[in-house]
Amino acid sequence: MVSQKYKEMLGAKSVIRQMSEWAAGRAKEIGGENVFDFSLGNPSVPVPQTFTDKMMALLQNRDTMELHGYSQSQGILSVREKFAEFLNKTYGMDYTSEHLFMTTGAAGAVAHAVRAVTKPGDEVLTIAPFFPEYMHYVNQTGAVLKVVPADTKQFQIHFEEFEKLLTPNTAAVLINTPNNPSGAVYSEETIKTLASILEAKQKEYGHDIFIISDEPYRDIVFDGIEAPYVSSYYDNSLSCYSFAKSLSIPGERLGYVAANPKCTHSLLISPMCAQISRGIGHNCPPSIIQIAVSEVLGLTSDLSVYETNMNIIYQELINLGFEVVRPGGTFYIFPKALEEDSVAFCQKAMKYDLVLVPGDSFGCPGYFRMAYCLETEKVKRAMPALRKFVQEEYSSK
Amino acid sequence: MVSQKYKEMLGAKSVIRQMSEWAAGRAKEIGGENVFDFSLGNPSVPVPQTFTDKMMALLQNRDTMELHGYSQSQGILSVREKFAEFLNKTYGMDYTSEHLFMTTGAAGAVAHAVRAVTKPGDEVLTIAPFFPEYMHYVNQTGAVLKVVPADTKQFQIHFEEFEKLLTPNTAAVLINTPNNPSGAVYSEETIKTLASILEAKQKEYGHDIFIISDEPYRDIVFDGIEAPYVSSYYDNSLSCYSFAKSLSIPGERLGYVAANPKCTHSLLISPMCAQISRGIGHNCPPSIIQIAVSEVLGLTSDLSVYETNMNIIYQELINLGFEVVRPGGTFYIFPKALEEDSVAFCQKAMKYDLVLVPGDSFGCPGYFRMAYCLETEKVKRAMPALRKFVQEEYSSK
Repeated sequence: MVSQKYKEMLGAKSVIRQMSEWAAGRAKEIGGENVFDFSLGNPSVPVPQTFTDKMMALLQNRDTMELHGYSQSQGILSVREKFAEFLNKTYGMDYTSEHLFMTTGAAGAVAHAVRAVTKPGDEVLTIAPFFPEYMHYVNQTGAVLKVVPADTKQFQIHFEEFEKLLTPNTAAVLINTPNNPSGAVYSEETIKTLASILEAKQKEYGHDIFIISDEPYRDIVFDGIEAPYVSSYYDNSLSCYSFAKSLSIPGERLGYVAANPKCTHSLLISPMCAQISRGIGHNCPPSIIQIAVSEVLGLTSDLSVYETNMNIIYQELINLGFEVVRPGGTFYIFPKALEEDSVAFCQKAMKYDLVLVPGDSFGCPGYFRMAYCLETEKVKRAMPALRKFVQEEYSSK
Repeated sequence: MVSQKYKEMLGAKSVIRQMSEWAAGRAKEIGGENVFDFSLGNPSVPVPQTFTDKMMALLQNRDTMELHGYSQSQGILSVREKFAEFLNKTYGMDYTSEHLFMTTGAAGAVAHAVRAVTKPGDEVLTIAPFFPEYMHYVNQTGAVLKVVPADTKQFQIHFEEFEKLLTPNTAAVLINTPNNPSGAVYSEETIKTLASILEAKQKEYGHDIFIISDEPYRDIVFDGIEAPYVSSYYDNSLSCYSFAKSLSIPGERLGYVAANPKCTHSLLISPMCAQISRGIGHNCPPSIIQIAVSEVLGLTSDLSVYETNMNIIYQELINLGFEVVRPGGTFYIFPKALEEDSVAFCQKAMKYDLVLVPGDSFGCPGYFRMAYCLETEKVKRAMPALRKFVQEEYSSK
């Protein structure tokens, strides 16, 4: 008989996916250019030509059996060596190839990291607002995700709420900075405070508490700032990355888990991840993509369009009277809705062909997410629709 | 704390992997050309130029964001449509895109298929000799793998033993034809007998019993025969395939699950697999590989070298007095060892720089596997070493 568990999951489609499907349907009616779809976090800037050239050169010059051959289950050794060297140079770390595990995107990285440092029944804390898929990545391991209510002032961490949820069952804290959906970049102060609380609790409880740091937006930061590298501040940390956003190659599914060389059993994490993969039949990410990316480390798409778009939207939101935290990075912004029920708010927006995502599934009802990975021209054209929506639906009341 | 479960798995490395590591070490001492490594099932024939050309054309002509963009979680729709059409034409089936789920190789396909049609505690039968990783794919779902002892006469199915293991807890039967390690291709008669036993048992037990058919070697068959397409003979069947062997691209990790349109809930299997992926953070295989393969369906590498190699080895084994079933396909052969303890037998072979894998981990002690995905020239050079090994170690006794 087919599995009841997975059959039941079919009913609960992601809200983001639902909004995006509505947008696709609407686009058929009135033309895609007239639907202002802020629902999906899909990169909107081209893949760098250098990456494409590298792929072509590999196809032209490499022995095909080497290029397309099995990688080791932790990832191709020479690739991991290059990644370690790059991270050490960039963030002052001491990774070796043995600290790295190549994954299918940040999703695979987070799911593996959770399995590596928890056991069924353990608690994993995450901070609202948070990426809704965390619920699946954590709960399907048998561990339990607990959500720390949001610091809606700045979308940093509400430490008072955080400390209330820490218990001896806490095995890991899953954070995401720069943050989807808020666009907030955790400050050095936030990360230091988090680290010091956890260090004290590790002593108190007599066991490790890992930080699993989900960092696919690490390279999309604004105002010339840099996102602090979480693993520099806390030993028991696993850094999860993806090239989906920085190189605009989400479909190629390449990411990694980097185990802090100072963490407990740091040399076991990557081999353990390989064992985790074994049980799900996953093995390793595509070899040609591993090799191509390892030869362009540090390269990114032209990410400046996201900052341009953010500034346009942020300014218009402020002009329209929204309460909103200015994003420090990503391609998301997370304003407060103009009524308490953010689902109702987003439904009204659909009348204006604006596709917004209610904050509820991010653990932060009353807010909504706009993903501004769109052409700037379209973002500009969306602003009058946003103004009209606000004025017609909320100004008269 | 790091997971005890995965930490403990680290101790139990695959025997095949151990043999192959020994071979790599020995190659450093005496030169790779002097080590006759029959341990690893790695394709040894080049990727077809047409595939490389297709990859190049995609990189040159396609919009990069489309080419490298997110695929749907079941796999790119247009890709699945092409796969369905190809399978229908080739095997007379009635698949639509909705019956297909794109996976990372056959490994991902089998692991997903098991999760889709079992629940923890269910029993999954497989037939010795069997691919040892099945143990992990099945047991990590919470289902239990039970092994039907081998039919060592022909490496078909020992139905008497098979029927003894069928119980109301049997949820699925995992078969592999053409078979790794035996090289046997299940005959039409074998598949029909299997189907009729299972149909009767489904009625008796009042629930579905699925056949999960692992078919990565479907295109490597000898003597001009064709491997019967299992799903043509049994409705509740999931066909698992990989392009690793037929296109020599094991590192690119592309395969699929095809749910028989006549199986129970046939349209739910693929969406359920997408939910399974969600929990492991896997999502979907690399987009450029999905697209490139979909445009060369039916193309294979020049697979004839495997038949050439098989004939050389088979003849020499016969000459040396081995008891051996002539393979109908794959790039494996599975002779009876010359002493009861096949581990001792393979260890003695190492003195002659012959790397063979004992049958024990395939559920068939007393036999050994030779993977002959090597250059024919090397296979020929290995034969005197094999002869010397047999004569020195066994003929005098």
